[in-house]
Amino acid sequence: MKIVVDAMGSDCAPAVEVEGAIMAAEELGYDILLAGDDSVISAELKKHGYQSNKISIIHAPERIAMHDPAALSVRRKRQSSIVVGIELLKRGEADGFVSAGNTGAVVCATTLSLRLLPGIEKPGIAVVYPTLTGTAIIIDVGANINPKPMHLFQYGIMADAYSKYILHKPNPVIGLLNVGQEETKGTDFAKEAHALLSESKLNFIGNIEGRDIYAGAADIVLCDGFVGNVILKISESVIDTIVKLLKQEIKTSIVATLGAAMASNAFNELKKKMDYSEYGGAPLLGVDGRCIISHGSSNPKAIKNAIKVAGEFKNQEVNKHIVEELENY
Amino acid sequence: MKIVVDAMGSDCAPAVEVEGAIMAAEELGYDILLAGDDSVISAELKKHGYQSNKISIIHAPERIAMHDPAALSVRRKRQSSIVVGIELLKRGEADGFVSAGNTGAVVCATTLSLRLLPGIEKPGIAVVYPTLTGTAIIIDVGANINPKPMHLFQYGIMADAYSKYILHKPNPVIGLLNVGQEETKGTDFAKEAHALLSESKLNFIGNIEGRDIYAGAADIVLCDGFVGNVILKISESVIDTIVKLLKQEIKTSIVATLGAAMASNAFNELKKKMDYSEYGGAPLLGVDGRCIISHGSSNPKAIKNAIKVAGEFKNQEVNKHIVEELENY
Repeated sequence: MKIVVDAMGSDCAPAVEVEGAIMAAEELGYDILLAGDDSVISAELKKHGYQSNKISIIHAPERIAMHDPAALSVRRKRQSSIVVGIELLKRGEADGFVSAGNTGAVVCATTLSLRLLPGIEKPGIAVVYPTLTGTAIIIDVGANINPKPMHLFQYGIMADAYSKYILHKPNPVIGLLNVGQEETKGTDFAKEAHALLSESKLNFIGNIEGRDIYAGAADIVLCDGFVGNVILKISESVIDTIVKLLKQEIKTSIVATLGAAMASNAFNELKKKMDYSEYGGAPLLGVDGRCIISHGSSNPKAIKNAIKVAGEFKNQEVNKHIVEELENY
Repeated sequence: MKIVVDAMGSDCAPAVEVEGAIMAAEELGYDILLAGDDSVISAELKKHGYQSNKISIIHAPERIAMHDPAALSVRRKRQSSIVVGIELLKRGEADGFVSAGNTGAVVCATTLSLRLLPGIEKPGIAVVYPTLTGTAIIIDVGANINPKPMHLFQYGIMADAYSKYILHKPNPVIGLLNVGQEETKGTDFAKEAHALLSESKLNFIGNIEGRDIYAGAADIVLCDGFVGNVILKISESVIDTIVKLLKQEIKTSIVATLGAAMASNAFNELKKKMDYSEYGGAPLLGVDGRCIISHGSSNPKAIKNAIKVAGEFKNQEVNKHIVEELENY
């Protein structure tokens, strides 16, 4: 297995990517190609005293920053770590690609270079997240902020295959995010998506609401990329807010401070459960390749987990299953 | 001050409404009109041994249930507590209206009966919520799921007046919810709303993202009613999920259980801070009247607080200020 990692993507690049790559090479036995500035990456590898032919560097002197305009940067910065990395994938020199960099640029570069799977009109970013009853997928969280109803149907097919073959759920339950349960609720877009999904062979349970997302009412939550993006960012911030407010409250009493210290293991376990680095980043579904997008603030473990998921994506032939499912509908 | 309360709205109606009305009559000295089934409300008042001319009953034998179709129910159930209550407001026999019932029906009945303020094209539901730095308002959370950019501008004007005169913020900061900070980000709708707000005299700081909502980056968050509705429901569910997951974790250890018990006051204070019954329900802004929508699961205190806000709405002449602000733009 050979995975190319954008070494210049994360907020702490390339330190985080290099450490994650070393973990992946050692724990998973994968070959890792680090795309980015040769001298900077070499220096980072030296810090770890890492010498092995499991990790090699693909020199890419340019860098697309987090807030650079996506399409323009991809066209102009042909020597950036994102473009160089995806070109490796395109030429068949790697089995998967991982980036914690500019999400828009990754979506743009993969769509332009790798193209889409046959029958798929738009790619979607899927995020695996914890619920009260296990895990679920939400798609799309930002690749496509103005989708057509047909795109949501196709996201249903893609997430269905991903759930089956990566999350090992034989018959995932699919819900459409809306403002009410009744099929008459919502925008025209939501009503049309509801109709398409109802007619399909997918295990579609109809509309679900915001409160059902974390309750685990569905294994797959379908929504447009605007709403999904807001949900993703608000979820992270709500958790932060609660922890910070709780700390403010706890500081006001010695007994509470002691109590919080005693319960701290539980807090840490919870944080781990809510931390989506555990789930290995977000697959970009629909492109003809295997691309995992990690959080900009990823730690080395998150990068390692993303590399692992990229490998499973290949081993489980997810894209082949997506194309087959789509042909059968 | 005379406030009419839909006594048949909440999940535990009319017990919660009656108790909330008694609290409001005693603590605030307001006159309360309870709209609903005479015999049921009388029985409930008797349970409390309440005898005072501060509370009277307006008989309304019909009831619009939580999941009844809004527009149809308002047209057909002319003797429902919602329609009867709002008609009292229209005839000037009450200063404000509070309902914990079917939100769609309340929006529909007020819009049809009270009409909108001059210059306002659509009403919006505003929710006051806690942030890391204080409180903020999000509008709209579900009255208008398919707004035009102009509606968001008008929500900005309305929430600005509400913040100034009810929350006592002299110069509230306004943000537009989007998928990125740059003005080029988002849907055409978001870009057009951004342009309208930028040209206005409002204290508009541009786009904000999901993560900024609870961080308190803005005093007023503008969004379409679809996104706002999802945010409202997901926020409640994230808190529930965290508390439940934490309890699961804590149960696994005696030390953690003890610790949690010691920290329980802090938890309760936090829960209180996050509980939007403290903030007295959600004002429906833009209608020519004073209407506060409470949560279906409201407790008596939430009803009392909603009644209090309805009174402040009148005392502070919020609608007059909205019309004036709109005329000056």
